[in-house]
Amino acid sequence: MTGTTLDDYTDRYAQRVRGMTASEIRALFSVTSRPEVVSLAGGAPFVSALPLDAVGEMLGRIGGPEHGATTLQYSGGQGDIALRERICEVMSLSGIDATGGASPDDVVVTVGAQQALDLVSRVFLDPGDVVLAEGPSYVGALGVFQAAQADVVHVPMDEEGLIPAALAEALVTVAKAGKRAKFLYTVPTYHNPGGVTLSEDRREEILEIAERAGLLVIEDDPYGLLGFDGEPVPALRSRRRDGVLYLGTFSKTFAPGMRVGWILAPHAVREKLVIASEAQILCPSMFAQTAISTYFATMPWLEQIKSFREIYRERRDALLTALTDMMPPGTRWTQPKGGFYVWLTLPEGLHSKEMLPRAIAARVAYVPGTGFYADGSGGSHLRLSYCFPTPERIREGVRRLAGVLGEEMKMREVFGTAAPGTRPAVSWTPAGTYNAAAANHPAPGLE
Amino acid sequence: MTGTTLDDYTDRYAQRVRGMTASEIRALFSVTSRPEVVSLAGGAPFVSALPLDAVGEMLGRIGGPEHGATTLQYSGGQGDIALRERICEVMSLSGIDATGGASPDDVVVTVGAQQALDLVSRVFLDPGDVVLAEGPSYVGALGVFQAAQADVVHVPMDEEGLIPAALAEALVTVAKAGKRAKFLYTVPTYHNPGGVTLSEDRREEILEIAERAGLLVIEDDPYGLLGFDGEPVPALRSRRRDGVLYLGTFSKTFAPGMRVGWILAPHAVREKLVIASEAQILCPSMFAQTAISTYFATMPWLEQIKSFREIYRERRDALLTALTDMMPPGTRWTQPKGGFYVWLTLPEGLHSKEMLPRAIAARVAYVPGTGFYADGSGGSHLRLSYCFPTPERIREGVRRLAGVLGEEMKMREVFGTAAPGTRPAVSWTPAGTYNAAAANHPAPGLE
Repeated sequence: MTGTTLDDYTDRYAQRVRGMTASEIRALFSVTSRPEVVSLAGGAPFVSALPLDAVGEMLGRIGGPEHGATTLQYSGGQGDIALRERICEVMSLSGIDATGGASPDDVVVTVGAQQALDLVSRVFLDPGDVVLAEGPSYVGALGVFQAAQADVVHVPMDEEGLIPAALAEALVTVAKAGKRAKFLYTVPTYHNPGGVTLSEDRREEILEIAERAGLLVIEDDPYGLLGFDGEPVPALRSRRRDGVLYLGTFSKTFAPGMRVGWILAPHAVREKLVIASEAQILCPSMFAQTAISTYFATMPWLEQIKSFREIYRERRDALLTALTDMMPPGTRWTQPKGGFYVWLTLPEGLHSKEMLPRAIAARVAYVPGTGFYADGSGGSHLRLSYCFPTPERIREGVRRLAGVLGEEMKMREVFGTAAPGTRPAVSWTPAGTYNAAAANHPAPGLE
Repeated sequence: MTGTTLDDYTDRYAQRVRGMTASEIRALFSVTSRPEVVSLAGGAPFVSALPLDAVGEMLGRIGGPEHGATTLQYSGGQGDIALRERICEVMSLSGIDATGGASPDDVVVTVGAQQALDLVSRVFLDPGDVVLAEGPSYVGALGVFQAAQADVVHVPMDEEGLIPAALAEALVTVAKAGKRAKFLYTVPTYHNPGGVTLSEDRREEILEIAERAGLLVIEDDPYGLLGFDGEPVPALRSRRRDGVLYLGTFSKTFAPGMRVGWILAPHAVREKLVIASEAQILCPSMFAQTAISTYFATMPWLEQIKSFREIYRERRDALLTALTDMMPPGTRWTQPKGGFYVWLTLPEGLHSKEMLPRAIAARVAYVPGTGFYADGSGGSHLRLSYCFPTPERIREGVRRLAGVLGEEMKMREVFGTAAPGTRPAVSWTPAGTYNAAAANHPAPGLE
């Protein structure tokens, strides 16, 4: 009943979308919003913890007679200066400040950090270019790189984050293939989906390797202010004013429904980003920008972030305790010190994507590890998020998941363990056991 | 003081942004927001006419305790179903309805119609592809096509809009050059910047030509409901359920500061558009979507559109009267029946881009015609907008502009008329005098 159902447009599509189809797990996820399913899948922040009375009052005021003629109007492509100033204030908590060359003039406001990522790709990536990214990597970034027709080469991580030797190896591999890596895309702090944080020592090491190779670093930092212990980890950008583009978002410190993020970029790059953004969206929403700059100017946002941290720490604890209490032997997981996610490695022989329909039947949802690798590996892993459900629900979710794992293991015992596609992924290597041989294996698209 | 000022990134940029620089007239426009300048340049709707008390109250309510947990959260990539239903209601005013296959399921919500345009380009355009577009054409669309590395071939218009014979000719020219036109981009109703409307007869003719050639039609309709006489003109999409993608926006019927537009696309295309949009922005703002669906569900929006029409009609009349009263002989202009713009042709020898600094010195601003042609032609023309200034200011602006024209003409008389680049553009041809020879001249990039 919806017009054309056969695809008459096949021969007209651009190269980049041929074969582009909706994710095969999307249909499954459409049921995860049902109340009976415990979803450990999504990355939705717990916005109910915001002071919604005050927020609503503020939103009404900025959209009313006093400010409406401005907030409901078009604005500039780079973003409102009042917001760009607040952004600099927020970044200073991560060690990015005027001393290090951060200025409102070099900030571009975007439709969430997702558009920031897309703009960076538009400005730097030609089809066939190589992007280095952690393995696993943020699924939304992989979507952007795929749309840019870039080849993603995953660089292994361990409990301390991206492995410097593996990055150096990857650069060699890419060069040997006659390609050039345009940039490293990294989430160094409270990684999505890895749940790990790049250690202090490695930060400098990674930056030095990048500098030597002339490799641009795209630092994506949505969770930096949501650490559970002490002060925020200084960002990579705080160590280098050039060579690092910093991506931020208000989706986790305020509200994703506003869709506001930003890029801090060297001046020359910033100019290109603004032009690219204008071609894409004309300008960011002036209403959303005013909402956020007003929130950060007039409301106790630092207190609010502290309260978010407490909520997420309690939930992280609930998840880790439940995993320890209930997961079958052979299951491993990361210990996040901030952010939203735990990365779980299944007992041998189990495959997270194959198991998903049975998990959903058992009323628990997660994201299979395969979503976080451009080459479809990662089946031995899955991502659990603890940001949205209550501790009780998290525990119940883990109970259900443990049941599913137990059943799977029993099945494997009966039918044998050689299920297809269940070999352990090479790119998730425990600390200290990095396997250089595995990293030398070129990623698809480089062969 | 802002980090790198030299561009160290030159050799890393993607092909599409090499040579991408900020518009040369941008610097000039930075002064047009000064109160002493009468700006006939911008396309900002008169949002002050909205019932801002009620709008503010509504915005406060949807962001407050009752709805905040939903409106401040992530939402789906295709857009909220409540809004997509309202969009179908709005489109039905332009003759696009369920009988013609329009369904909320085939609507994709976007960040203004600009993102809609960008998504269409992402899905259909490879570098080197040809796009047909009216000459002149919407400057924001030209930016998108340039970013997509497509070649734009302008098809002449006259007072009745796009000239069918010229479209047929252009298709032949493109085919002869061994290229394929992927789509026709058109603003058939109350054209920006042309100020003309495609006549009833030509609508069918254009669609038939497109159908025969297998040419997709991208119908951009921001102004369709802002006509000054009687009922809205039925959209091209109301005549064909396939082969036409329809782009709409709430920027002119409600508020551009919310950045909400949409695409209605055949089902198979819609799927691609959603995936492309998710890669670009994850999802549209749930707050903005709820604001608009609530506005259209609970407030007298049709009355408001009527009131907008009255305001813009009065301003159009003020502009046309002032032009008639004050413009020097040899100046011509279009007679818009809706929308925001008048397209003005200068007396021979004058060049709108060269004249702009002097106009701004005389405290009046317009957009030079060159901005609306991909090949930099259009210097004999300029766009005047009447949407934002009051009738008094419009008249004052025209008075200043007439003074500038008079001065320019005097100068030409003294120094001769052969100023460079001031030959009349071939692509703005009065009705009935379409010159096929001119249309045969290939556009740059096709030679």
